[in-house]
Amino acid sequence: MPDSTEKTKKRLSFLGPLGTFAEQAALIHDPEAELLPFASNQAVIVAVASGMADEGIVPIENSLEGPVTETVDLLIHESNLMIRHELVIPIEHCLLVSRDSSPNEIEAIFSHPQALGQCRKFIERCFPKAQQIASLSTTAAVQEMLSRPKSAAIATKRAADIYGAEIMAHGVQDNTSNVTRFVVLSDTDHEPTGRDKTSICFSIREDKPGALVEVLMEFSSRAINLAKIESRPSKETLGKYIFLIDLEGHRLDGKVAEALRQIEEKTTPEHFKIFGSYPQFVSAAD
Amino acid sequence: MPDSTEKTKKRLSFLGPLGTFAEQAALIHDPEAELLPFASNQAVIVAVASGMADEGIVPIENSLEGPVTETVDLLIHESNLMIRHELVIPIEHCLLVSRDSSPNEIEAIFSHPQALGQCRKFIERCFPKAQQIASLSTTAAVQEMLSRPKSAAIATKRAADIYGAEIMAHGVQDNTSNVTRFVVLSDTDHEPTGRDKTSICFSIREDKPGALVEVLMEFSSRAINLAKIESRPSKETLGKYIFLIDLEGHRLDGKVAEALRQIEEKTTPEHFKIFGSYPQFVSAAD
Repeated sequence: MPDSTEKTKKRLSFLGPLGTFAEQAALIHDPEAELLPFASNQAVIVAVASGMADEGIVPIENSLEGPVTETVDLLIHESNLMIRHELVIPIEHCLLVSRDSSPNEIEAIFSHPQALGQCRKFIERCFPKAQQIASLSTTAAVQEMLSRPKSAAIATKRAADIYGAEIMAHGVQDNTSNVTRFVVLSDTDHEPTGRDKTSICFSIREDKPGALVEVLMEFSSRAINLAKIESRPSKETLGKYIFLIDLEGHRLDGKVAEALRQIEEKTTPEHFKIFGSYPQFVSAAD
Repeated sequence: MPDSTEKTKKRLSFLGPLGTFAEQAALIHDPEAELLPFASNQAVIVAVASGMADEGIVPIENSLEGPVTETVDLLIHESNLMIRHELVIPIEHCLLVSRDSSPNEIEAIFSHPQALGQCRKFIERCFPKAQQIASLSTTAAVQEMLSRPKSAAIATKRAADIYGAEIMAHGVQDNTSNVTRFVVLSDTDHEPTGRDKTSICFSIREDKPGALVEVLMEFSSRAINLAKIESRPSKETLGKYIFLIDLEGHRLDGKVAEALRQIEEKTTPEHFKIFGSYPQFVSAAD
């Protein structure tokens, strides 16, 4: 009965096309899942919210570039989904070319501007004269490269397989500690496991000395460690911010629940949001 | 004696080519300056550090997109220049076309991915079928548009003048509160004016509950208001951050100086940096 087996498979949405790092993360998260590529991270989220997918996987943070602001802003402003899992995957960029190309003849290098930025030193050293051309994604870069002679693309190893390109160089990113953290979004977050994280956002009511400290002390006074704090513009006016915090513990843990209740009272109602609690990622190497 | 007049003009570097928002900011900052366009913000900074320019102007923050991470990371890791001024300019995007184009025939829209993102709703509503094509800058987009029939570009009004393009629509950004904050870098910062800001960065020594709060309390206990706090990845490992703070007051003010001395002791020496003190920007409209 292949039909019923088919139906129990988890449907997992991600930013396509095939060959992106998001697809790689999706395959690591659930190798059995039915993969549903979408054209934007916004669509990945809508797919889950509307029931087309059970879970959606989106990049949220890179160890070199910082927050993936598009995703963070979608979570703040346009989604009611919960974070159910996190995972961290290494980003290895490769230089892809058409078959039988030589390094000496590369005149142009395609990639997403962020990937070009991550490989700046490699490009400057090995291809100082090559023109850098922006693409909308690393896989779009591969397609553009294949239709233009004497060009190369910065993309994933998997994109080389999928599009039949050749890997001329691998590990071409400037910094070897290049990892991206993805989160898996769903209708519900994860039950407590004893080693969890919780993500929230808030904005402070008054712009006065100590207003942020007062909020943060709700955590420090309860010995709750913060894994991350960052700020995003409120999009209302320059100088007004929404803070995002990842803290250690589950939102159902007594002291975390108490701190969150206090913070909800101290912050503006329209920007206070608990994105969910989920198990801390532990890599296979740990 | 045109030569001696020439020499007293301030030489101001910015990210070119002509027609970028950075050029617009440079013209507002000093209409008399000799403008030196460079190919990257990194080059803008090197130009000042090496004496080719007296000042360099770089974008640091946008009210919708948040920090300009490239600039922030250059300040943290690759520059010893000081912030001497700040200025905030409104970002107005226009839809540029070749002469005698009609809205009905637009099949592709070029721009920098950030500008495409800022005009997402306009594009979806008015040009739902147009292909969006990434360019390395808004002015590169205009040049690409001019060489491809049935296309448009999102760029500045000034780019239309410079490249002889026509403005088909103006104010096409989704959010009208779109402003960018620029900073002017120089060898020295600004003397106290009584209404100043100071920018610093630091990282905390130990990842323990309350470590950040302890630093922030050096400000709140002295009634020093924070205008901004954000975090950037340290680029060493995921989960280690460098914090950036803009505070109200001049680094030479008694209580600010005292707070900074305390913070320097509490934070890691390799990441503590005072970017400088400078007058708070007051727009002409205020």
